[in-house]
Amino acid sequence: MIKGNAIVGQSGGPTAVINSSLAGVFKTARDNGIQKIYGMKNGLSGFIREEFVDLTDYIKSGLDIELLKRTPSSFLGSCRYKLPDYTTDSSVYEKIFSILKKYDIKYFFYIGGNDSMDSVAKLSAYADEIGSDIRFMGVPKTIDNDLDKTDHTPGYGSASKYIASVVKEIILDNRVYGTEGVAVVETMGRNAGWLAAASALAKTDDCAGPDLLCLPEVAFDYNWFYNRINEIRKDKKSMVIVVSEGIKTASGNYLCEENNEKRVRDAFGHASLGGTAMFLTHFLRTEMGIKTRENILGSQQRSASHIVSRTDITEAFVAGGSAVQAALEGQSGKMVTFRRLSDDPYKIDVSLCNASEVANVEKKIPDEWIDKTNGYVSQECINYIKPLIIGELTPFMVDGMPMHMHL
Amino acid sequence: MIKGNAIVGQSGGPTAVINSSLAGVFKTARDNGIQKIYGMKNGLSGFIREEFVDLTDYIKSGLDIELLKRTPSSFLGSCRYKLPDYTTDSSVYEKIFSILKKYDIKYFFYIGGNDSMDSVAKLSAYADEIGSDIRFMGVPKTIDNDLDKTDHTPGYGSASKYIASVVKEIILDNRVYGTEGVAVVETMGRNAGWLAAASALAKTDDCAGPDLLCLPEVAFDYNWFYNRINEIRKDKKSMVIVVSEGIKTASGNYLCEENNEKRVRDAFGHASLGGTAMFLTHFLRTEMGIKTRENILGSQQRSASHIVSRTDITEAFVAGGSAVQAALEGQSGKMVTFRRLSDDPYKIDVSLCNASEVANVEKKIPDEWIDKTNGYVSQECINYIKPLIIGELTPFMVDGMPMHMHL
Repeated sequence: MIKGNAIVGQSGGPTAVINSSLAGVFKTARDNGIQKIYGMKNGLSGFIREEFVDLTDYIKSGLDIELLKRTPSSFLGSCRYKLPDYTTDSSVYEKIFSILKKYDIKYFFYIGGNDSMDSVAKLSAYADEIGSDIRFMGVPKTIDNDLDKTDHTPGYGSASKYIASVVKEIILDNRVYGTEGVAVVETMGRNAGWLAAASALAKTDDCAGPDLLCLPEVAFDYNWFYNRINEIRKDKKSMVIVVSEGIKTASGNYLCEENNEKRVRDAFGHASLGGTAMFLTHFLRTEMGIKTRENILGSQQRSASHIVSRTDITEAFVAGGSAVQAALEGQSGKMVTFRRLSDDPYKIDVSLCNASEVANVEKKIPDEWIDKTNGYVSQECINYIKPLIIGELTPFMVDGMPMHMHL
Repeated sequence: MIKGNAIVGQSGGPTAVINSSLAGVFKTARDNGIQKIYGMKNGLSGFIREEFVDLTDYIKSGLDIELLKRTPSSFLGSCRYKLPDYTTDSSVYEKIFSILKKYDIKYFFYIGGNDSMDSVAKLSAYADEIGSDIRFMGVPKTIDNDLDKTDHTPGYGSASKYIASVVKEIILDNRVYGTEGVAVVETMGRNAGWLAAASALAKTDDCAGPDLLCLPEVAFDYNWFYNRINEIRKDKKSMVIVVSEGIKTASGNYLCEENNEKRVRDAFGHASLGGTAMFLTHFLRTEMGIKTRENILGSQQRSASHIVSRTDITEAFVAGGSAVQAALEGQSGKMVTFRRLSDDPYKIDVSLCNASEVANVEKKIPDEWIDKTNGYVSQECINYIKPLIIGELTPFMVDGMPMHMHL
């Protein structure tokens, strides 16, 4: 007989599969006999206000679990909340632990990225400090794939599948008139280029893939870009280039921050990173005389549940369940991780790391996976991403529209 | 025994289902015993250069037909080519008819929108003039749904399904933090608001739908917009508004052309219609102090084959086949049309109209279907769009990626 209740929260930016992890936490907790499984609304900021829901009110059947797995965005809502250091300010910790006691919560699960793992590490350390037996576990989540200590992160596979599929469609779209033109596709990714790199998977039997990738890992150089485009246009009229929103020059400026210097302004004088594609299309038009069109892949990158990777959905679910299992086995202050055993056939195993090791670290694309001369990623990088997009899980469609679960 | 060969071309902007019409033309032509079925590359501009392919080289099986139906963008390439009036300049007509004779082509099919129907009408009239028995038939195509004489246009249903699904995902995405914010979604649509109107279908059992639609049929008024947003924000923190790129003020200026006056400039001083969402987010931020994010639905609106309407794919296929059947029955200078018999259950029949009646006319949303006070469309409008998005046709997936047919 398990003592005490469980609570689960979601934090940071949503993904298309973050609710699959929530479903995984719920199912394993329920299957192991935990009676009450609370959800906190809007992560820790809702927790502090005791904004709880009883998840059994929403998830009543196997069908509900499947619907939740197919629901994008954070079912419970999210927050961007950073805990202070408890050695300097323990008041919020005292509040949190009094609430945990009030609801007889012994297991605390937090689905999120670096900042969320910072919270898991701090709460677990504080529990040690005060001799509490409450266990805190992290479930990894981010479309950016920038979490350290894990081979990859749930959310990345589906974002990759979305980006690669859309880029393939843009490649088809861009060439219809048979005239010269560059489509500039802008992905998310401030410091790590994993999302832009995923567009290389558009290279398939029936598609040459994008022509050029600009990644934040590589300092952007105007001369190199100018020359590389001229090289490509020798053989091709229709070009598609994919850029991370966060590409920077050697001086460390985001491209959009360069705007003043180059006499190009963001529409309202803001240094919005969203201006990267617009900056490049302007450069291509004015400096090279090439017809261009920008395509900014917006929030669909993190919420396109209409095209997800079944591998990703399943792994997100497994990550949630594994966190519960580890907590029941006595673990705390850990995050669930994946280890790659083989690319082809794709095999991983599930392990744990200290949440503190993940907090505040950003994993970038390894240098040796980047082809700086041509502006591309290596076959090894493609082989790494490829298995993460395999398989589909179609939404439940009602009257032609995807159905979702909601609070 | 059918005499002579057939040729088919695609013109204007692509859609997710324009190749389903191509497949329909091919299948009915082949099934009726037409021997050679040519495809012209890049529409009439490729025709004049005799850039032909033999479609039987590409479509060899039922599986190929299914793959072609699932391939977005124009398989044969496209063009924007306008024929002159033959009474003032008949030289290009003489050239076209000499090429038709050279290849023994008796049936000419053109898949496209208003401009393409202008070509069909002119070529057919010229054939009459010179006593030619070559038949010219138009197959309707446009995501904009602005073709007259037909209940709706192939391409619109899939674009609607894409837009409504993505807007539903954006609604979920926008509310995760529980804080006030407006997501401004910009759809295509220069003069007709059909695409923006389709976002109203995001209103389902589990979703309230977008909060406000700004359509080009209604003159945009700053005071009305200001007051309407203030009304909505009384009850809601997370708001999603959908705007057509072509909304205009009462003075007839596109919003982006208003920029100078309002001291907001398009990034490079161009009057690009793409600036409409950016203009509104700026207004919301600076005039109303609301956090905003813009989401510009780019070329995916016309090329997202990863989420299409089965109804639309099937109707596009039927439209292609019906054009062939009509031509074989002796028709020329006509476009295939749909007539709505009933919304629920959804029933249509297929008919013909004169291509000349479609050319140069734009069908807008009827005035009585627009709720100008609240910025929305009527239930009747929703009932009209709803059946067009029903059903799915999943891509053929290989290694996690949609597969397409290519020349």
